[in-house]
Amino acid sequence: MTDTAEFPREPDKPEQPSGWLTDGELAVVRQQIPILYVDAVPVRVDDSGDVVAVGLLLRVTPTGTMTRALVSGRVNYHERVRDALVRHIEKDLGPVALPQIPPAPQPFTVAEYFPTPGITSYHDARQHAVSLAYVVPVAGDCRPRQDAIELAWLTPEQACEDDVQLEMENGHGVLLRQAMAYVGRLP
Amino acid sequence: MTDTAEFPREPDKPEQPSGWLTDGELAVVRQQIPILYVDAVPVRVDDSGDVVAVGLLLRVTPTGTMTRALVSGRVNYHERVRDALVRHIEKDLGPVALPQIPPAPQPFTVAEYFPTPGITSYHDARQHAVSLAYVVPVAGDCRPRQDAIELAWLTPEQACEDDVQLEMENGHGVLLRQAMAYVGRLP
Amino acid sequence: MTDTAEFPREPDKPEQPSGWLTDGELAVVRQQIPILYVDAVPVRVDDSGDVVAVGLLLRVTPTGTMTRALVSGRVNYHERVRDALVRHIEKDLGPVALPQIPPAPQPFTVAEYFPTPGITSYHDARQHAVSLAYVVPVAGDCRPRQDAIELAWLTPEQACEDDVQLEMENGHGVLLRQAMAYVGRLP
Amino acid sequence: MTDTAEFPREPDKPEQPSGWLTDGELAVVRQQIPILYVDAVPVRVDDSGDVVAVGLLLRVTPTGTMTRALVSGRVNYHERVRDALVRHIEKDLGPVALPQIPPAPQPFTVAEYFPTPGITSYHDARQHAVSLAYVVPVAGDCRPRQDAIELAWLTPEQACEDDVQLEMENGHGVLLRQAMAYVGRLP
Repeated sequence: MTDTAEFPREPDKPEQPSGWLTDGELAVVRQQIPILYVDAVPVRVDDSGDVVAVGLLLRVTPTGTMTRALVSGRVNYHERVRDALVRHIEKDLGPVALPQIPPAPQPFTVAEYFPTPGITSYHDARQHAVSLAYVVPVAGDCRPRQDAIELAWLTPEQACEDDVQLEMENGHGVLLRQAMAYVGRLP
Repeated sequence: MTDTAEFPREPDKPEQPSGWLTDGELAVVRQQIPILYVDAVPVRVDDSGDVVAVGLLLRVTPTGTMTRALVSGRVNYHERVRDALVRHIEKDLGPVALPQIPPAPQPFTVAEYFPTPGITSYHDARQHAVSLAYVVPVAGDCRPRQDAIELAWLTPEQACEDDVQLEMENGHGVLLRQAMAYVGRLP
Repeated sequence: MTDTAEFPREPDKPEQPSGWLTDGELAVVRQQIPILYVDAVPVRVDDSGDVVAVGLLLRVTPTGTMTRALVSGRVNYHERVRDALVRHIEKDLGPVALPQIPPAPQPFTVAEYFPTPGITSYHDARQHAVSLAYVVPVAGDCRPRQDAIELAWLTPEQACEDDVQLEMENGHGVLLRQAMAYVGRLP
Repeated sequence: MTDTAEFPREPDKPEQPSGWLTDGELAVVRQQIPILYVDAVPVRVDDSGDVVAVGLLLRVTPTGTMTRALVSGRVNYHERVRDALVRHIEKDLGPVALPQIPPAPQPFTVAEYFPTPGITSYHDARQHAVSLAYVVPVAGDCRPRQDAIELAWLTPEQACEDDVQLEMENGHGVLLRQAMAYVGRLP
């Protein structure tokens, strides 16, 4: 999962906004309580709402491995879940992705990332994160930012294939297939 | 609930499309099995998906009473639920309403309209209808068609007020409040 | 899908209950409108609600093929969806299965079985059926009745394996995996 | 919301279990990130899963006011959401309540309690809490523990009446009505 708190601060934002933690503070809190996240599965839909493509972020890890990921990030103090969704989608897909944030707060699932592997399908070595997962149609132009080198649009069938699933870490592959099950497009 | 089968056929459609019933056939079937419907709650949302207004159709009954209604109609033979949603929204809100049909088929509730009042919150004297209910953001220009004289946009709070609720028949008032509960906007 | 209307009538029920169709009437209606169904995925859960096993009905088709199926059946005229769930679970799993019918009518998905294969993941040669699908924990003793020869309890992982999936017809394999995705147990 | 961390530690548990914070640590964290909670609406259901009663905890505040509340509490570090539900229900309703924890992690809504009133329907002066809300049927004997003086079972209609709603704080009244909307029992 991407975590905004770990990216270099932008030059024009010397002061931390309220509710942000320093890296040191965050490291301490992460050993104490579950951290609230949102996961978004960006999709293209046709006029009747049927999912025709899924957007996956392509990243290269420090060790040179190529990985695919969903949009993911922390909910800040005093931030609404829907505003966290908008913020992370804009951060990862750019400012003109035109996401259609679901009107209801009910997520399609809750993904529980444990630091210990095997308790659930999800894993995060850094922390115990609990993520509210949403399928988010995006209607606009997507330009990956930050550390992603590309946003690839795959059909639901392609996204569920073994080779793509193997490139997804921490249980994002399972979460993606849960999203496809939810929208009725599990192969 | 509005039922397309009962409206005068358009002049340029002399042949019934496959899966349509004559009024007589429909009357017989309605006494035999539950009829599948869709209900749509049209909403305006802001950039973060929060509902800011609900669209209600204003109609005048044959006896002169003013009523408010949701978008509602039958699912045809060999028609997907999402296509029925598009068709009924277009029928009631016009061709440029630009509805954002939810990507998932999971409805926020299932409304069971019984011919006998009191079994559920919903009632339909003509039939036993079972309706899949969805909240549908509409981004475009809405022009009520058919028998509706106006589409009124109300805030969630206004839509749940007693005087508006009293103008909604057959349990549509309850269904509207269920929709507001689902989107987190129940007053 | 199993359809009660097609099974031999029990000797002590010479008269059809209200809302039942003769086989001939049903055959006509099936070509005219979508037929409302319920699908139930019977599960065993532990004390924290986690699914530990899925129940699949084992049947032998007239041509001698062994198939596995979910609990499935039609909603009758003037019958609530939750009562149809109870009736079909009792029909297939016996009178002491002690099903825990979900308190909310919201299904985990809506399965649209078309007579034409390929439109959705589900198929029913006889009709256009639209099924509300629920995961139903059963706490009691299950004794398959009617035409099923056995009820087999499989782990979520086993139930999603290829050889089991191949024994499920009409898209029940996909529906089962959607159910496992919904309960967070998709392998 | 009830928070276990603030109750006197039991004599036989001198050491804090892993993942627990001291009151001082919790007070600091509460000003830094959203705290993950679960809310449970305890219900009695009939054989077909229909809700017949809602359980509300009766408490007297330090200032002598009588309040009604849902079951609510924090999710601990390295604790699954479903285990937190079991723990808080047992804490508030006793060890033989026999709760039927939902098999799916999808909550019926996400309640966002802000320290600033008016941002959402929910409010918590102490913190920014984000709560996953579930309807939980309880089949056993409920004996309120801790600080509650009684568990009162009300019909859905009674629970939504103004006088009961007024006794519920921090938005629990709205959350209760959302739960009733979800189970199809909103008056």
